[in-house]
Amino acid sequence: MTDTAARRRGRRTRVESADTRDRILNVAREEFSERGYDKTSVRGIAKAAGVDSALVHHYFGTKEQVFEAAIEVAFAPALNAPEAVAEGPLDGVGERLTRFIFGIWENPTTRTPLLAILRSAVNNEAAAAVFRRLVASQLLRRVAAQLDQPDAELRAELAAAQLVGCAMLRYVIKVEPLASADVEQVIARVAPVVQGHLTGP
Amino acid sequence: MTDTAARRRGRRTRVESADTRDRILNVAREEFSERGYDKTSVRGIAKAAGVDSALVHHYFGTKEQVFEAAIEVAFAPALNAPEAVAEGPLDGVGERLTRFIFGIWENPTTRTPLLAILRSAVNNEAAAAVFRRLVASQLLRRVAAQLDQPDAELRAELAAAQLVGCAMLRYVIKVEPLASADVEQVIARVAPVVQGHLTGP
Repeated sequence: MTDTAARRRGRRTRVESADTRDRILNVAREEFSERGYDKTSVRGIAKAAGVDSALVHHYFGTKEQVFEAAIEVAFAPALNAPEAVAEGPLDGVGERLTRFIFGIWENPTTRTPLLAILRSAVNNEAAAAVFRRLVASQLLRRVAAQLDQPDAELRAELAAAQLVGCAMLRYVIKVEPLASADVEQVIARVAPVVQGHLTGP
Repeated sequence: MTDTAARRRGRRTRVESADTRDRILNVAREEFSERGYDKTSVRGIAKAAGVDSALVHHYFGTKEQVFEAAIEVAFAPALNAPEAVAEGPLDGVGERLTRFIFGIWENPTTRTPLLAILRSAVNNEAAAAVFRRLVASQLLRRVAAQLDQPDAELRAELAAAQLVGCAMLRYVIKVEPLASADVEQVIARVAPVVQGHLTGP
């Protein structure tokens, strides 16, 4: 093999690796979404992706780590957005955050993985740990960092509690009239509460 | 058989029936708590109670109806209390309701069945329907009935959303610092929000 051919081959292998990794990740996201954390296995993911289980472990590690990677990809748009949400004038942060969260839940494409992670987190301690790390460190702490308060994290979590509870009753358990209420009407009521938690007395 | 003996025997049969029904109900509550709705079967409940599946169906009907009966028993104290909670001056209802809900969650005996119903409701549509019927009609509507507002039910549900979200983040997913925060500190922050939803402008 010439030097150039070896280099070309090396490049192709790297590209193929990235493709395989992405394929595994996509399959993992689908499996976790459809079956939940408990019923999904590394073996099942490997089989659906057409690779060996060892390769899944090689790329991601344990089942918990595969789950974390899959969620991180699914939530990239959601977890990256808060920069724009938390930025800007502090007195509008409640409405921006509320609008952002309802936006994710109102959109069926982003609602499905969110439902899956919520279901998994409620049912399984390992999945709950992933939820804690991702949501707490990536979303809540970034919101809290904008607040100039000694209890900023607790404030951010109580604001999140209002939003998580709304999502539970409106989208998961579907309690009426909340489930069918106009989303703008709900945002108008919830945003000031979120604002109050974050910046109130 | 004399008339008196027959009557005595009839009484004993009724007592035995009530005992069997209670035994089935207790077993059902345990099975649903431990395994969740999906993994619990009428057959498994019957086996654990030492009776035939047909008897479980005879007393309660479908699996969904067994679940509803089991939850109703587990929640009798919780579902009966709101009368005291919703009564009294309206300007203290936020604190009474908040204190009541945190009281249930802080007590391990009442927390376990609550966790089970929440897990089941998140995972299963039939269990969610039971949750809706019980919580919405028995708890929320009774709170809403005390409010003299056209949108009383939506208000009660948004208040409940704050409480459900707090329970999710504090007791189920255990996000810090909320999970370890002093319960009185949390109540002090949440009660005014619940009050605001119920009676605010």
